[in-house]
Amino acid sequence: MDVIFLMNSLWVMLGAILVIFMLGGFILLEAGSTRMKNAGHIAGKTIFTFGLASLVFWAVGFGFIFGDNGNFLVGLSQFFYSGAQIEGMNLSSTVFFVFQLAFAGIAITIALGGFAERAKLSVYLIFTVLFSALIYPVIAHWIWGGGWLAEHGKQDFAGSTVVHLTGAMAALAATILLKPRIGKFNKDGSANNIYGHNQVFTALGVLVLWVGWFGFNAGSTVAVDDGFFGYVALNTNLAAAAGSVSALLISWIVLGKSDVPTMLNGALAGLVAITASCAFVDTWAAVVIGFIAGLLVFYSARFFEKRKIDDPIYALSVHGVAGVWGTLSTGFFATPELATVGLPGLFYGGGFTQLGVQFMGVAVSGAYAFAVSFVILLLAKKLLNGLRVTEEEEIMGLDLSEHGSYGYPEVFLPKDEKLNA
Amino acid sequence: MDVIFLMNSLWVMLGAILVIFMLGGFILLEAGSTRMKNAGHIAGKTIFTFGLASLVFWAVGFGFIFGDNGNFLVGLSQFFYSGAQIEGMNLSSTVFFVFQLAFAGIAITIALGGFAERAKLSVYLIFTVLFSALIYPVIAHWIWGGGWLAEHGKQDFAGSTVVHLTGAMAALAATILLKPRIGKFNKDGSANNIYGHNQVFTALGVLVLWVGWFGFNAGSTVAVDDGFFGYVALNTNLAAAAGSVSALLISWIVLGKSDVPTMLNGALAGLVAITASCAFVDTWAAVVIGFIAGLLVFYSARFFEKRKIDDPIYALSVHGVAGVWGTLSTGFFATPELATVGLPGLFYGGGFTQLGVQFMGVAVSGAYAFAVSFVILLLAKKLLNGLRVTEEEEIMGLDLSEHGSYGYPEVFLPKDEKLNA
Amino acid sequence: MDVIFLMNSLWVMLGAILVIFMLGGFILLEAGSTRMKNAGHIAGKTIFTFGLASLVFWAVGFGFIFGDNGNFLVGLSQFFYSGAQIEGMNLSSTVFFVFQLAFAGIAITIALGGFAERAKLSVYLIFTVLFSALIYPVIAHWIWGGGWLAEHGKQDFAGSTVVHLTGAMAALAATILLKPRIGKFNKDGSANNIYGHNQVFTALGVLVLWVGWFGFNAGSTVAVDDGFFGYVALNTNLAAAAGSVSALLISWIVLGKSDVPTMLNGALAGLVAITASCAFVDTWAAVVIGFIAGLLVFYSARFFEKRKIDDPIYALSVHGVAGVWGTLSTGFFATPELATVGLPGLFYGGGFTQLGVQFMGVAVSGAYAFAVSFVILLLAKKLLNGLRVTEEEEIMGLDLSEHGSYGYPEVFLPKDEKLNA
Repeated sequence: MDVIFLMNSLWVMLGAILVIFMLGGFILLEAGSTRMKNAGHIAGKTIFTFGLASLVFWAVGFGFIFGDNGNFLVGLSQFFYSGAQIEGMNLSSTVFFVFQLAFAGIAITIALGGFAERAKLSVYLIFTVLFSALIYPVIAHWIWGGGWLAEHGKQDFAGSTVVHLTGAMAALAATILLKPRIGKFNKDGSANNIYGHNQVFTALGVLVLWVGWFGFNAGSTVAVDDGFFGYVALNTNLAAAAGSVSALLISWIVLGKSDVPTMLNGALAGLVAITASCAFVDTWAAVVIGFIAGLLVFYSARFFEKRKIDDPIYALSVHGVAGVWGTLSTGFFATPELATVGLPGLFYGGGFTQLGVQFMGVAVSGAYAFAVSFVILLLAKKLLNGLRVTEEEEIMGLDLSEHGSYGYPEVFLPKDEKLNA
Repeated sequence: MDVIFLMNSLWVMLGAILVIFMLGGFILLEAGSTRMKNAGHIAGKTIFTFGLASLVFWAVGFGFIFGDNGNFLVGLSQFFYSGAQIEGMNLSSTVFFVFQLAFAGIAITIALGGFAERAKLSVYLIFTVLFSALIYPVIAHWIWGGGWLAEHGKQDFAGSTVVHLTGAMAALAATILLKPRIGKFNKDGSANNIYGHNQVFTALGVLVLWVGWFGFNAGSTVAVDDGFFGYVALNTNLAAAAGSVSALLISWIVLGKSDVPTMLNGALAGLVAITASCAFVDTWAAVVIGFIAGLLVFYSARFFEKRKIDDPIYALSVHGVAGVWGTLSTGFFATPELATVGLPGLFYGGGFTQLGVQFMGVAVSGAYAFAVSFVILLLAKKLLNGLRVTEEEEIMGLDLSEHGSYGYPEVFLPKDEKLNA
Repeated sequence: MDVIFLMNSLWVMLGAILVIFMLGGFILLEAGSTRMKNAGHIAGKTIFTFGLASLVFWAVGFGFIFGDNGNFLVGLSQFFYSGAQIEGMNLSSTVFFVFQLAFAGIAITIALGGFAERAKLSVYLIFTVLFSALIYPVIAHWIWGGGWLAEHGKQDFAGSTVVHLTGAMAALAATILLKPRIGKFNKDGSANNIYGHNQVFTALGVLVLWVGWFGFNAGSTVAVDDGFFGYVALNTNLAAAAGSVSALLISWIVLGKSDVPTMLNGALAGLVAITASCAFVDTWAAVVIGFIAGLLVFYSARFFEKRKIDDPIYALSVHGVAGVWGTLSTGFFATPELATVGLPGLFYGGGFTQLGVQFMGVAVSGAYAFAVSFVILLLAKKLLNGLRVTEEEEIMGLDLSEHGSYGYPEVFLPKDEKLNA
């Protein structure tokens, strides 16, 4: 057996495991960022929708992305797992399949962030199936499956566009159609803070995501090469670090207090932004990209709130805005030595060409993800007689309304019902 | 140095680390599924009993399973770690030792699920030592250590029987001898719901177990082969996915609400079931095995409750019933290409032979684990003047009764005692 | 490409990821060991200070430890990441860089344990920068970077001294200068218990640290060798196991109840102690070292409390006392076969020589870390007009005083402010 084939397989298997572990980060991040009455629902749906997305990816998702005989939109073979080797890849086709499955799971999880605290469980079910079949695989095919954006030399090493922007645009469609949560905005248009219930969860979630991102980014080498995964991991860590620092500082300066959720979002924004460029830029550029992402996420969250868009888990700012910034950043910072895909960036004498390709990739991918999500959810709204639980149910919480039991029963139930006495 | 030897060692080391990480999943799952007054105890005892089981495994467990010069029951050498190479294994003997130690740790942790919320700490101590010395190693020797079931071609790739059923049968013995928790059953025989206190913990626990299971199942290749671990991981993921989906759907259909704990148990049941067969079956079969496991766990939990068996953490349904189903499933679904141990299954023209071997393995292993556990606990009951804390202590909670401090003091103590003012 | 180079890189990359994951363990351990009103702050600052320490390490830390052209104190090249290969190391220089960055992150995190529940956020910021630039790299240079203690044959395989003792001595300086928390000691000198708020977090934190320690210790082989990392992992696991068991037993015997936090500290103390010696001793010695560490941590915590030193997260006992014990233990237990650095220990006929070197290493490193930390904090005290939040802020909690929002808002805010109705 070829030793490099085996080492590549081992490395990417580790990457896949780390990416699936990121779901634990999302469970903590999303549950921590929302209220106790919805916590069981939010944690539980993350497992369920990953399960559902896994089955859809196995059935059709992988084939749409990497199948042969396709058209400009999707591939059309390898449904229900064929085990066929992907051309030009020197690793176990099954390991690659699991790695890609994990990415599809992250994409839908990001998208569902926009549904938080008000959508019906049935909407989660339907949207998970259709997003995993019709939205994510199409964009992944365009950029990673040899589709038309790949042919233009679009740089998106590990998915700032493919995964994060796609997820965020679906979240945007959802949050527009679902409307803000009860109590988020006052009649005069001013916004209320709806605090997440557990910052320990949120912080731990960010740490788990940070760790998992080594699989996401460094695993995307899909090869051990000469140990280049270490370089990708270093850039990833530096961007996350810079994002956490800049977001803390900007909130300290502007608000007079360093806000914990902002700082955590800064770390995530750094991670999202470096995802496109981690393999193409110098370490100082990784610091700059992450630092700017941390500033962007602070102002972006304020921007959306002023526009009366209610984004409970900051999916738009963290995955959307930082995803766009990250994708564009390679057009500035990609070095001649590292830009193995596309061209060097503006700051390295590459001119505006690559920046233009990056911009086009963002615009078309974002538009597709938003538009198809919007149509799906409009249809679901008719089909399901509304996307949203009733006002009464929303006040009672989705744990009870959608699942019939509290996530934290001892907090809500009277003492004797808990069988504690 | 042989490169394959090194890669096998690296892969199995990763597997061992993932399996030990599963203890974090059990901490979350068990604490989340029980009440606040017992949470510190439940989380803490998982660390302590893993520590104790590690020492017993080092002293005698490994030798009983894999030692030479044994009899039909156990091996009889390699106590206190010898470093001797296991015949026919091409990896570091120490890595293999750690991997096996991790499995022994999982087995006792499953068993102790049946003790939850009412057993004395001293019972945990005694049972951990005796189970880890006399029960788990015997069954592991029979099936994995070259014992008599191995000679019959028993298929149990990663331990649906060896680990999960063995643990579950010990839990059954405990739950029968300990009797139900106060308040679980009414005088007319009807059951009350004793809700777990934190579904975020439970969901996160399931995700951690899911991730750790890649080490458990895919690590059980104990070799990188040609990247076959990827295939095992894919089957593992698909079965978990299918189990989560089927359990959610069945609870939605039957109860009118999709129950979160049921859905989570479905994912676990899928994982337990595929544990025996993950290396032997097609991907569609993994989906079917997981899907059926998810249905089984729903009906099984209702069945035990009706029989007035109080199983707080669903050890019997998740590890027992799904463990039996998983072990039998290879007798149906093992393909001619993949069945490197034993024979192909019934659906592939293998007839009833392998199914018979699987059934015998389940019956004998289950009976041994149950009977010896029962005897040990009967003796412990005499020795310790009862297995169970007093009624007063149970109502007060085991955090206070067994350890002298609350796991969540700020929830239970009056404000000034917390030094918060 | 050299296959061993690649495998070493892969193994150490995994190690680095595991060590960074340990930060999740510290988030849980520290938040769980303190009060609800400070939980968001404690969890959040762990992410922020790791971010900050990462940037400092990238800028100057690595260069100070491993740079060339240095003096007796530090190296003086390779700032801002050069990618230069470290002499005699057969792995990717970038992977090694990330691995070392992770260690620097753990060291500052341990140090900041001594600041808990009363220091200003600005103190965290300043101390993180200066500790990561001036303290940790100096000691790491002495012992691991080819400095003067390395030349004396100081044995510290994975950092009982370099990381744990250094962190603990900084924590000691902080806890002395900050003074005890309000309410910790009564006027008559007796101590109150200030309970941590969540033992599930604490226990899970210990498990995460235990798992991460496989990267910390076994990863410190920085090579796959002949699979020797498995042996290091086994010793690590056995010492943690023995520490948890001995600490539980001693607290049970002395206090009449087995204390959960003591047991958890026992596991950590076993891990800290074996960190120096994991590659140099027999498995029985690992059990002895861990067992003694578990006893030490129990008595040490009582000792510091009697001296009116308030150590909220037990940094002094777990990382300091066990760090010293671990460093000295190799002077007793290092075997002739395994002592690849320095000499065999006293019990193997090596005499007192190695023990003397170990003692000197502990004394000088500890003194340096303490003295420089003390001076930095004294200066910071003047600069910042005090290290500590006001009495009012401390009572209100640092979540609110330092960050402007509660970590657990639904626990503290009145019902209608939570937008729950």
